[in-house]
Amino acid sequence: MISEKRISFSDYLIANIIKKKSHVIVGLDPDYDNLPESIKGATPLSIKGICMAITEFNCRLIDAIYDLVPAIKPQIAFYERYGIEGIRAFIKTVKYGKKKGLIVIEDAKRNDIGSTAKAYSDGHIGKVRVDSHDASIFDVDAMTVNPYLGSDGILPFLDDVKTYSKGIFILVKTSNPSSVDLQDIKVRYEGQKARLYEVVAKLVNRWGSNTIGSFGYSSVGAVVGATFPRDARKLRKLMPKAYFLVPGYGAQGGKASDVINCFNKDGCGALIAASRSINYAYRHDKRFKDSQFAEAAREAVIGMNTEINNELRKNKLLNW
Amino acid sequence: MISEKRISFSDYLIANIIKKKSHVIVGLDPDYDNLPESIKGATPLSIKGICMAITEFNCRLIDAIYDLVPAIKPQIAFYERYGIEGIRAFIKTVKYGKKKGLIVIEDAKRNDIGSTAKAYSDGHIGKVRVDSHDASIFDVDAMTVNPYLGSDGILPFLDDVKTYSKGIFILVKTSNPSSVDLQDIKVRYEGQKARLYEVVAKLVNRWGSNTIGSFGYSSVGAVVGATFPRDARKLRKLMPKAYFLVPGYGAQGGKASDVINCFNKDGCGALIAASRSINYAYRHDKRFKDSQFAEAAREAVIGMNTEINNELRKNKLLNW
Repeated sequence: MISEKRISFSDYLIANIIKKKSHVIVGLDPDYDNLPESIKGATPLSIKGICMAITEFNCRLIDAIYDLVPAIKPQIAFYERYGIEGIRAFIKTVKYGKKKGLIVIEDAKRNDIGSTAKAYSDGHIGKVRVDSHDASIFDVDAMTVNPYLGSDGILPFLDDVKTYSKGIFILVKTSNPSSVDLQDIKVRYEGQKARLYEVVAKLVNRWGSNTIGSFGYSSVGAVVGATFPRDARKLRKLMPKAYFLVPGYGAQGGKASDVINCFNKDGCGALIAASRSINYAYRHDKRFKDSQFAEAAREAVIGMNTEINNELRKNKLLNW
Repeated sequence: MISEKRISFSDYLIANIIKKKSHVIVGLDPDYDNLPESIKGATPLSIKGICMAITEFNCRLIDAIYDLVPAIKPQIAFYERYGIEGIRAFIKTVKYGKKKGLIVIEDAKRNDIGSTAKAYSDGHIGKVRVDSHDASIFDVDAMTVNPYLGSDGILPFLDDVKTYSKGIFILVKTSNPSSVDLQDIKVRYEGQKARLYEVVAKLVNRWGSNTIGSFGYSSVGAVVGATFPRDARKLRKLMPKAYFLVPGYGAQGGKASDVINCFNKDGCGALIAASRSINYAYRHDKRFKDSQFAEAAREAVIGMNTEINNELRKNKLLNW
């Protein structure tokens, strides 16, 4: 019954990357203060109004970029901070993105153990039981997960990765300066000297080994910051089959020549994320008025696609 | 203007511990399948109905135990999995617990960096800006935080700890078997051999150093599992001023003689958590009918208080 088997998350992701000719994922990290006046003016100044503005802003952004990128990455913290109404805005954003053919990778960095990790997984990438049926709640395609609790914290997510053809991206080496505090610590592991993030990389390989899709990539990916290009090169070798979710491009200082280390020789393997530089492009590009924020975002995405594709071409890694 | 200064989280916690003569914190981790029929039968079988049942169950539990313990620890994963309605149930539970004089420590294990960590902190322990005022959203007294991202992931929470007299508990050594995967790794740190969790312990000291209250405890606590008593003893010495939030008692195997290592010589320093053994006590205690779940929970809490207080007395650590 091969025809009934659903395509794995990694296959779905790569197919969409090739279709859109883009390795970019757009973060949707709404900050009310930075929203255009044209959006803010149309909603009341209340928690509910703020969340309506966020939803409207996101949908307009998605309309402007859905044909240019394979995926979006809403950061749930920016919604969750508004409680019930924020979660409503988040779920509406996810639904709208998926309706437009975008893959939705939730940046949630959730982590816990046993039945608690299962509860997170059920809610975000799996299903919850209601009476005699199963319901999808957040219904994202993939989510980010923190590894500090070890295997007990990852295995419950893996069940849903397999059952529902979903993905997880495990924090390995994050883009922030103080990622060195713990992730770069010198460790002794399996008789060898290493950095802690290399140990996590090895675990990511192990956790993902039963989820390899037809393009050769696992549905258990890794978060690898653009801001540490030398570490990225090492990690690319350590996790040849893991898709990298790469934050830190643009606003945090990562350049196209930095993120090139995150790709494999097949020209795949990395999804480069940018949020602020796209979401609020209208604030820095004088060609666009406040009300043209969506057009400005579109231009910024086209620019970023070009930068990354040019860099891949220069390195003979562009495969379209 | 000393009189205007609010009492620190650690002082508020310890005052409540002494008042209640209890070092126990009750986890509220609702699992619909385990709820009593008397609660389930009164609500419709829908997401909304499930969340109404959870809220009702929690409020009845709180009514039964609020005079016996200083604090409750709702685990947000069990609410979040139901999306919008789940968050509503969570917030109602928090409000009800606080109304009854309980300290609410949210088990959220959130983590991120910069403005994203700030968004989590604003939503859970701080405030969000709405028009010309600041609104509290989750409004818990303290929350658990994951340290894998280093200082950048902790400092934004520290601001709210200081501004709003809140607390955070940082995962140091968790109670699950695979906590050894990363937390127990042998590392080289500041020229010395150590385990990773010892490095995190040192960071917890540093992060909490400006938040010491009048009882001598910091408002930056540590999560230290009851299931590794030898590690707990080491960690108690490494973090003399951190309050320990101790999961793993009861269902996970931790005993009173294990958790004694988490206390300081002043008879304070540890908050021992139990969830399932209290929430669903009625399922294992034949004296109670389904409809008497709250009475059963009360008995279970009294039993746990007695066990821990007796152990403290035995070790000459009981200070009431």
